[in-house]
Amino acid sequence: MSRILFTCAYDGTPWHGWQSQAGGETVQDVLEGAFCAILRGPLRIAASGRTDAGVHAVAQCFHADIPEGCRMSPENWRAALNAHLPASIRIMQAREVPADFHARFDARGKVYEYLICTAPVLSPFLAGRAWHRPLGVDAGALRRALTVYEGEHDFRRFAARRGNEPEHPPADFYLRTIYGTEIAAEQGGDLLRLRFHGNGFMYRMVRMLVGTAHQVAIGKLTIEQLGSMLTDLQKPKTRHCAPPEGLYLQRVIYD
Amino acid sequence: MSRILFTCAYDGTPWHGWQSQAGGETVQDVLEGAFCAILRGPLRIAASGRTDAGVHAVAQCFHADIPEGCRMSPENWRAALNAHLPASIRIMQAREVPADFHARFDARGKVYEYLICTAPVLSPFLAGRAWHRPLGVDAGALRRALTVYEGEHDFRRFAARRGNEPEHPPADFYLRTIYGTEIAAEQGGDLLRLRFHGNGFMYRMVRMLVGTAHQVAIGKLTIEQLGSMLTDLQKPKTRHCAPPEGLYLQRVIYD
Repeated sequence: MSRILFTCAYDGTPWHGWQSQAGGETVQDVLEGAFCAILRGPLRIAASGRTDAGVHAVAQCFHADIPEGCRMSPENWRAALNAHLPASIRIMQAREVPADFHARFDARGKVYEYLICTAPVLSPFLAGRAWHRPLGVDAGALRRALTVYEGEHDFRRFAARRGNEPEHPPADFYLRTIYGTEIAAEQGGDLLRLRFHGNGFMYRMVRMLVGTAHQVAIGKLTIEQLGSMLTDLQKPKTRHCAPPEGLYLQRVIYD
Repeated sequence: MSRILFTCAYDGTPWHGWQSQAGGETVQDVLEGAFCAILRGPLRIAASGRTDAGVHAVAQCFHADIPEGCRMSPENWRAALNAHLPASIRIMQAREVPADFHARFDARGKVYEYLICTAPVLSPFLAGRAWHRPLGVDAGALRRALTVYEGEHDFRRFAARRGNEPEHPPADFYLRTIYGTEIAAEQGGDLLRLRFHGNGFMYRMVRMLVGTAHQVAIGKLTIEQLGSMLTDLQKPKTRHCAPPEGLYLQRVIYD
């Protein structure tokens, strides 16, 4: 058996998210189908984490254990899988890793990017690939809002509920560290690229960070009110979740 | 009656080119359908020129004559049309022009861009939007090849036949001027953006210019051989036509 770590990119538009589900049509299902076609037998893969329907990945990582009888070089695995995959899902890199390496448990951090288009009309080349907010976005206020998120905080008000959330979570359950944020203006200022680098992100957390920062950027929330959402932990979660189509899993960081 | 000049962008992937045809599914058909829905009656539009199936436009131009009873500001026309159009076709700008202005006959030049991706694997975000040539493309040779095209030349060997080509064309029939070419490397050198600015381009001409220059870039044709294709006019047309998905009508130039 050999364990290979794959880096894949996908346009999330046509897929029902990463995670395998009955009915298929998820990125994991399509990837496992490609392995199955090559190996003539089923194989499970383990990703660094899920992405939601419509969310994109520039560099999602997953590992797979290749049975002994089916050895190929990582390069050849990349080519063979791409030959079986649709153009919207591509294996970008592959390399062998130790048998105890794990795509999820060994991830030390992640980088996400979020695209906001502020042009009056959304270009057809950004349809499904950016959040269109043509009115009143103050990029300076957005930058200040992102800075508030930096550092170690309890992000419970920026995490959507999922079935597996415990009723009495331990004190550090929602604690995450955002090492840094960036915002770059492209295409003459019409396209804002937000960047989040952190040690981990909870379910829908990046979209909730973006959606709430956007409230600051349009003057509906003050920086102080935003800051209090990281300290007033008894209040409800944010209601502002940016849509999936602007979100890109940009990088998974390993040692 | 008022004549409005519209600038539109489209992702050509799902459409059978610009030009209206039986069976619809062309950009012109969809645009005329949107006018028809708003005006509750048919209206013909006139573009700066056609684009082929799969070819994109960042700024195609067309004009339309709005009947007297249906006046709206150009701004409102833009919004009304976009409300009726799919996300892959967008009206970007609209302005009133004199009644004798014509989107085709008044065009003084055009700018086309062509994207070539030389990365080992084509990113899903470039699928249908660039020509994937992962092997052996020498960007320096490509730059020298494009320079050969600059100036006024008889481009008959770089023009595909169309039904309307006369049997005995006048001497200047294939004469066009390319004012300039550019090539820029993006995404760490993996994406080459070729730019052509000329007074006019014949049917498939840009794709034939790119396809033939690519032969130089992979060492299959010398610069001298390429140059002779603009002077040895009795020989056959080039066989090298780059695919439509890399091509973008970038700008139509008016006085």
